[in-house]
Amino acid sequence: MNINDEILKLNWHREPYGLYAPIAYTMAAGGKRVRPQLAMIACGIFGGKEDEVAPAAMALEVFHNFTLLHDDVMDKAEVRRGRPTVHIQWNENTAILSGDQMMIEAYKLLSEVPAEKLPKVLRLFNKMATEICEGQQYDVDFESQDDVSIEAYLHMIRLKTSVLLATALQIGAYIAEANEQQQEALYQFGINIGLAFQIQDDILDVWGDPATFGKAVGGDISCNKKTFVYLEAMRQLGNEAMRQEAMRQEAIALKEWYSQVLDDNTEKIAAVKSLFEQLNVRSACEAVVEDYTQKALQILSGLPQNAATEQLRQLANKLNTRKD
Amino acid sequence: MNINDEILKLNWHREPYGLYAPIAYTMAAGGKRVRPQLAMIACGIFGGKEDEVAPAAMALEVFHNFTLLHDDVMDKAEVRRGRPTVHIQWNENTAILSGDQMMIEAYKLLSEVPAEKLPKVLRLFNKMATEICEGQQYDVDFESQDDVSIEAYLHMIRLKTSVLLATALQIGAYIAEANEQQQEALYQFGINIGLAFQIQDDILDVWGDPATFGKAVGGDISCNKKTFVYLEAMRQLGNEAMRQEAMRQEAIALKEWYSQVLDDNTEKIAAVKSLFEQLNVRSACEAVVEDYTQKALQILSGLPQNAATEQLRQLANKLNTRKD
Repeated sequence: MNINDEILKLNWHREPYGLYAPIAYTMAAGGKRVRPQLAMIACGIFGGKEDEVAPAAMALEVFHNFTLLHDDVMDKAEVRRGRPTVHIQWNENTAILSGDQMMIEAYKLLSEVPAEKLPKVLRLFNKMATEICEGQQYDVDFESQDDVSIEAYLHMIRLKTSVLLATALQIGAYIAEANEQQQEALYQFGINIGLAFQIQDDILDVWGDPATFGKAVGGDISCNKKTFVYLEAMRQLGNEAMRQEAMRQEAIALKEWYSQVLDDNTEKIAAVKSLFEQLNVRSACEAVVEDYTQKALQILSGLPQNAATEQLRQLANKLNTRKD
Repeated sequence: MNINDEILKLNWHREPYGLYAPIAYTMAAGGKRVRPQLAMIACGIFGGKEDEVAPAAMALEVFHNFTLLHDDVMDKAEVRRGRPTVHIQWNENTAILSGDQMMIEAYKLLSEVPAEKLPKVLRLFNKMATEICEGQQYDVDFESQDDVSIEAYLHMIRLKTSVLLATALQIGAYIAEANEQQQEALYQFGINIGLAFQIQDDILDVWGDPATFGKAVGGDISCNKKTFVYLEAMRQLGNEAMRQEAMRQEAIALKEWYSQVLDDNTEKIAAVKSLFEQLNVRSACEAVVEDYTQKALQILSGLPQNAATEQLRQLANKLNTRKD
């Protein structure tokens, strides 16, 4: 079963069109379909039935797209996957309401999970959904917080990004009747690749290729987002500043840029990127991505080894080195 | 079991506070708790267990409050239950995200329904949730539509308001193991009192007492909302206009007022109210409320008669004659 094909088969051509057209638009935009793939692969590792896990896999993808839709409203993001975001293409109210309906559609798909497995799948899904909202709230809180630690940032992205990947894997494993320990191992694998995935995303925001990166490069810099890249730069500057006066000046310059809200961000993005490049930031961040990826692969070695496990291994490596 | 007490016992004192404080604020604001009461009473009619239905009853109330929260953002409503709405008290992003989390909290409560009854309860809940969003979308569509028929309006409020009451009753009956026919009868009872409830709401927007009505009186008039009262007035003016030139002038005046967006709506509310009062609008609307209420009570007479049925009868009469 190709889960992307199944997702594209979902029919959103329904009335009222004002509600469903933005959902069709969002779901047709593609994306990597990583989450449903993870659920399918996890199920495959333990020989589970594809048609039992497929509804949950699709529910996870629809839910993920719902979060992007509402996050884009909150972040005032104008481009997603190379196309105008829903609140730009339609308007903000449409983005709110169609997003709400997308969340409900996720739960509708989820309700098709075999009845005897539904209670636990619903609980896992709800826990994940809550954590994603909590992660988004911490993300918002960090905007007005001057002293975000790397630990707090990692906790935030664990909630906002990792738990969705982890839960996709756990649900896949549970539906395939893997034991608790195996479910937990895949969950932890998901947490680690999620952290790697998000930090890679932060790296791509600065050094991604505009031609292949779906979002505007430098978007995080424009809106003063305290990404892992920024926090790592500040950490290095903080350490260096103890020794060198010059570094102190750079820390001040970086903070100064991050206090500005500009219409044209060209100069700011170039300046901040240059500050990052004077430091050891890129390689330090890439080392962290590599570290989480290795942790994930290590966990994988304790699970049954078959074609699905190998697929998961390849996916982890691909996410780690992706360019979009 | 007093379901209002149970709702107030729900603990929202959690981190991150930015996410949960608006939920606590919303859930503490009260309201009539009609929907959870309906679920409890429906369960009671068939001798079901209160603790089996309570999670679903609370889920319905949390979901209802979530819809109000997001609707208030979309309608730019500033007051709800005599207090500033969440997007006024905090901001719009908070209202979006805390609203999303409230929907998830509803599903979390729902997941506590006995496992063997969960699949159907979840399906009924999802169907209802979808219809509410569809109703909201039609409501939005009507704003820019010049020729809204009374039938289309009734379809919209059936989706936006009635199905929630109807589903609360059906879920209560299902959990108490009422048969399909009984579940359907209570569902239809809910549809009818829902229509009566919403039209009564439309009446109160014009003729409610500002001291007891939770919202701003004339709010629908200010934002040119095509309520049942307005549509009934236009219907009467349409009929009368065939015969009387004066009536044609009034129809034009009403349309003219409804094309205006003003900062101060005092004069507009008074003028529109006066136009309504020159017609037979209030008594015609009240007759429709009475009609739906009688239909509902008629359905009730075919169900087991006990204390719970009597409670439902009283609730229907109270909603019909309510002032807030």
